[in-house]
Amino acid sequence: MTGPRLTDIAENLPETVPFVGPEAIERRTGIRTRARIGANESGFGPSPKVIEAIKAATEWIWKYPDPENYDLRVAIADFHNVSPDEVAIGEGVDGLMGLIVRLFIAPGETLLTSLGAYPTLNYHVIGHGGRLEFVPYRGPFEDLDALAEAARRLKPRIVYVANPDNPMGSFWSAADIERFIAAVPDETLIMLDEAYGELAPDGALPAIDTGKANLLRLRSFSKAYGLAGIRVGYAIGPKRLIGAFNRIRNHFGVNRLAQAAAIAALADQDYLQSARASISAARERIAGITRANGLTPLPSATNFVAVDCGRDGAYALKILEGLAQQGVFIRKPGTPGLDHHIRISVGPEPDMALLEAALPKAIEAAQGAA
Amino acid sequence: MTGPRLTDIAENLPETVPFVGPEAIERRTGIRTRARIGANESGFGPSPKVIEAIKAATEWIWKYPDPENYDLRVAIADFHNVSPDEVAIGEGVDGLMGLIVRLFIAPGETLLTSLGAYPTLNYHVIGHGGRLEFVPYRGPFEDLDALAEAARRLKPRIVYVANPDNPMGSFWSAADIERFIAAVPDETLIMLDEAYGELAPDGALPAIDTGKANLLRLRSFSKAYGLAGIRVGYAIGPKRLIGAFNRIRNHFGVNRLAQAAAIAALADQDYLQSARASISAARERIAGITRANGLTPLPSATNFVAVDCGRDGAYALKILEGLAQQGVFIRKPGTPGLDHHIRISVGPEPDMALLEAALPKAIEAAQGAA
Repeated sequence: MTGPRLTDIAENLPETVPFVGPEAIERRTGIRTRARIGANESGFGPSPKVIEAIKAATEWIWKYPDPENYDLRVAIADFHNVSPDEVAIGEGVDGLMGLIVRLFIAPGETLLTSLGAYPTLNYHVIGHGGRLEFVPYRGPFEDLDALAEAARRLKPRIVYVANPDNPMGSFWSAADIERFIAAVPDETLIMLDEAYGELAPDGALPAIDTGKANLLRLRSFSKAYGLAGIRVGYAIGPKRLIGAFNRIRNHFGVNRLAQAAAIAALADQDYLQSARASISAARERIAGITRANGLTPLPSATNFVAVDCGRDGAYALKILEGLAQQGVFIRKPGTPGLDHHIRISVGPEPDMALLEAALPKAIEAAQGAA
Repeated sequence: MTGPRLTDIAENLPETVPFVGPEAIERRTGIRTRARIGANESGFGPSPKVIEAIKAATEWIWKYPDPENYDLRVAIADFHNVSPDEVAIGEGVDGLMGLIVRLFIAPGETLLTSLGAYPTLNYHVIGHGGRLEFVPYRGPFEDLDALAEAARRLKPRIVYVANPDNPMGSFWSAADIERFIAAVPDETLIMLDEAYGELAPDGALPAIDTGKANLLRLRSFSKAYGLAGIRVGYAIGPKRLIGAFNRIRNHFGVNRLAQAAAIAALADQDYLQSARASISAARERIAGITRANGLTPLPSATNFVAVDCGRDGAYALKILEGLAQQGVFIRKPGTPGLDHHIRISVGPEPDMALLEAALPKAIEAAQGAA
């Protein structure tokens, strides 16, 4: 006996992780990251008022955070015109996804998603002994019709859709999403991931309606609000679903500074508008740079641009590696059908200039290697 | 159908929470907390260098935190002279407890603890469909001999011991703990909660030994380090057990500011020594105040004092309520055998003076009501 045994589920889990962080890549390669444009962060940062709020909150850092996240839930509820009982807070959307899977997926039960969609969700499903069913993307789009059809056929516990989508940056209109929601059976929970929602074009997000008994919508402060480091996400939905989080969550999990930061971020919508403009301009810059290098940028409703490299996945990977060699950190989808794309996140102009300088060399090296 | 069904485990969970925060009590009673001395926080706060580290880290708050918590793990490993692979970081000890239970307790399996010990652990066990077995306290002590005997008899997946203890403030010597560890079967995981370890007297903590295959030790930055609001705890143990956390944890769950704060806190051991002195003096102050009011303070190895009110649990509760009426927030154990105690956390002198002023009135009211 070499110590206590893990549960059967835990024993059989892989030790792989959903994402390797840029810090870990630096540690392993020894190459310093000069442009950090791979994790869909926002180098434009948060509102200066958020920074002030964090600094002010340090005075009370000896106190446990409010385990009810009350002030933040009230702020979010007021913003979306729902009740605080219809808002749950978590340690990022990642944390909320883990709770949702635990609440609704018993071992052997199924979550339906798109092949190549957010890997951390899959990690949580496998981690709870659940099963995954996949529907392929249709071009750069999650295939809503096929997902709805599969939901009716397979009766999964949960169906996942991101709008706008990651990793492709595409989006569906509110009308399309509403048609999808109506087509999914009532007993299947719809997990609608709107982490990029604040960056979506007008008309892409359905109106908030907590009257829909099987719909949870997920939002994040990591993207448009520029607060990836603070780890706050939230779920909006009917009170029955939202209340269930309280049965299992780590009640003191969202720290005091994070709650203060999120409240301040939500309050400064003027800053959000200026961040949206900066992000939009940077998307255009990425599109221009990649197009000038013979690649094909896809339209994006997010803070990143998926770029078709025009050959196969191995070639796109070579370009990514060529950028990494020059300290430009990006990521790419690995799923066949999507893997000929690279994914470049927005950043301030110095990052864009580094990309512009590095991309021709990366392409040249990739072509030379082919 | 009113929406998707929860798993059987989740459906049967109560909606009660382990702790109601002082903010929630304020919201419900309308009484402003004037002395917050009930949650075993440290009103002496963290090192000023920690505050500076948090403020400096806000510059990079747009970046995701390092999901490997690498720098913090290295700092902790160096401090304790172990390997970084023998250290896991979590969103407070609470978060780590949830992960440990999930890794080792399948539905129906057993965790053994003391009746009246840390309720959040019980919450996690129930939340994962596990079973609880209890051993009574022996006076103000967790009964190590009875726990070891029960561990051999019941073969639980996990046995829990806190040293120093919460809620009673007692402690065992390192030799006693080592004898306990040796007496527990190898296939039972020993969860040794040392959240108050930095406040324990010399000779209370066994030397760190990651060679013991069934031992995990838990530490916190919430108590002596004065950082309850930042939510960082850590586990030390053999690589096999520590590595298992990576299979299920929320890799990006500990935020960037929290990692920076914990590193700075660990680096300032001079401040920790001065905080220990302040906490020790405040314990004496609590002892003096309660003794002067005819109550019996117990010896404490923590940042709180358990005080025997000399009658039954209802009487002790009345005293707590009398203090609450005056804006003095404390807590008390509810378990028969322990429930004639109240539990008062240390605080700076203004808090102690408020306690001193409020306690006679609370006792008078309790006696009048009896």
